[in-house]
Amino acid sequence: MTGPAAPVLAVDIGGTKLAAAIVEPGGRVAAYDRAATPAGPGLDAEGLWRALEALLDKLAADAGDPPLAGVGVGCGGPMTWPAAEVSPLNIPVWRDGFPLRARLRDRYPDLPVRIHNDAVCVAVGEHWLGAGRGRDNVLGMVVSTGVGGGLILGGRLINGASGNAGHIGHVVVDPAGPPCECGGRGCLEAVARGPGLVAWAREQGWRQETPDATGVELAADARAGHPVAAAAMRRAGRAIGVALASTTHLCDLEVAALGGGVSQAGDLLFEPLREAFREHARMDFARRVRIVPAELGQTAGLVGAAALVFAQDRYWSAG
Amino acid sequence: MTGPAAPVLAVDIGGTKLAAAIVEPGGRVAAYDRAATPAGPGLDAEGLWRALEALLDKLAADAGDPPLAGVGVGCGGPMTWPAAEVSPLNIPVWRDGFPLRARLRDRYPDLPVRIHNDAVCVAVGEHWLGAGRGRDNVLGMVVSTGVGGGLILGGRLINGASGNAGHIGHVVVDPAGPPCECGGRGCLEAVARGPGLVAWAREQGWRQETPDATGVELAADARAGHPVAAAAMRRAGRAIGVALASTTHLCDLEVAALGGGVSQAGDLLFEPLREAFREHARMDFARRVRIVPAELGQTAGLVGAAALVFAQDRYWSAG
Repeated sequence: MTGPAAPVLAVDIGGTKLAAAIVEPGGRVAAYDRAATPAGPGLDAEGLWRALEALLDKLAADAGDPPLAGVGVGCGGPMTWPAAEVSPLNIPVWRDGFPLRARLRDRYPDLPVRIHNDAVCVAVGEHWLGAGRGRDNVLGMVVSTGVGGGLILGGRLINGASGNAGHIGHVVVDPAGPPCECGGRGCLEAVARGPGLVAWAREQGWRQETPDATGVELAADARAGHPVAAAAMRRAGRAIGVALASTTHLCDLEVAALGGGVSQAGDLLFEPLREAFREHARMDFARRVRIVPAELGQTAGLVGAAALVFAQDRYWSAG
Repeated sequence: MTGPAAPVLAVDIGGTKLAAAIVEPGGRVAAYDRAATPAGPGLDAEGLWRALEALLDKLAADAGDPPLAGVGVGCGGPMTWPAAEVSPLNIPVWRDGFPLRARLRDRYPDLPVRIHNDAVCVAVGEHWLGAGRGRDNVLGMVVSTGVGGGLILGGRLINGASGNAGHIGHVVVDPAGPPCECGGRGCLEAVARGPGLVAWAREQGWRQETPDATGVELAADARAGHPVAAAAMRRAGRAIGVALASTTHLCDLEVAALGGGVSQAGDLLFEPLREAFREHARMDFARRVRIVPAELGQTAGLVGAAALVFAQDRYWSAG
């Protein structure tokens, strides 16, 4: 099928950084800029919006202000969808709701503006051009500060009733497990998110001397042979394996692609993951799923956001 | 949209009974016949096929041999799909594979023949004309001798890579739980299937005097106030609630419709189910799902099988 010939402005809005790119129709990132997400006392919702506008102005100047086919955005959830009044958990000044799509439509009145959950955009990117390309039934997931994901089934992005499909972080992996930020208990995210792993490892004695160590350092220590760090990765891997078994039984996947900082632990995560998956996914159809690292790295979310415009037949069913 | 004007021959093939119906375009069952599924020594695969043909001959005679728009079939899984070489767990003589679609095409050479998992057909029936009608994101499930289901997302039946999507019976509800027939552990089916509940209740002292009592009698005893039977229903209900929380987090459902013999326990099942669901599904989008009894009763699977022909735009994406 033929998509737009002009490039798309892709935007990724998270609690740590704002990123924007000019993405060409084939998916190449032609220009890229980023900035730390502003925070702290004195910042309000409009202040964050102005910071985003400054980033977009800078990118347009750097890229020579090309004509655009549309604007695609990934943003931390939750949000109303497709209206994209966003209220990201990790962005305090927008936590009570910010009309992101309306504001971007005001700024780009002649362009389609399409916004989805940031983890959904990563999944779309991995399906469009990454580890899931050419397959019709794909889960893309991110294991990082949180655990999120998106589902492509029958070749099309699954949105669900309110745009919230793909929340694999809240698949229950142990009904008696630790409390989750969502208010539930035993969710995959409660066990496997970076800060959860760090907290668990600290209780076991890991890095008592460096109180700000993160999941990335935990993964590095695991690779370096630290037994507690390795045990933390094993705990995460097994929980992810259980959640993937449940997911493929429900959705009959071909590929599950894992990205995010925790996934950097490599085999220390993937081996216990595959072990638990094999224990729980015994039927032939379920065992056929390929569980692989994501391929697109840091730009997956931007590439996926651009695909909301470039490949709307697969990834954008809303108005 | 406009579907065929002629009726459809609908067939439901299970381990207990064979059923067939003439279903009108609006979903009304105009004629119906059933027979016990033959079994026992001396029966072979062809013997079962002849029994099915005899049922179809009788139905055609009873109904005045009307012209047909097609043939829709629900059959116990697993099967290859859409080729429907079936190998139903609960039908020993077909367990090693029977070319059901090919045989039916030979019998009805001028008609489309469409076959899907029997629980998927129940879900389709409930979406087309039952508890999920008018909604785009629906899980239909059957809690009976086994636990099965089907997913309609974005208004269309989800098949997955091999036609096996919807296996909610193998969502893991307790990774350390009882072994499952599938070879896994802690699947919903291992906890909540009728025979599993009966075995658990027997261990607690229920109906030691009637060794052939079933899940239907367990549900009846629960309604009559038997404490062990009620506890068994509570155990099943909580497990279903956990699996539904995981499912709606993944799929962002509007409606989950529960049918099957175990569901007959009513509030004794649904109250603990909703209690566990509320504990694990805390986010706004997840709490909006309506969890309700299926509406179509015994004919849901036949009505859904007919819909594979009548509403192919939603329910049949294969060749």
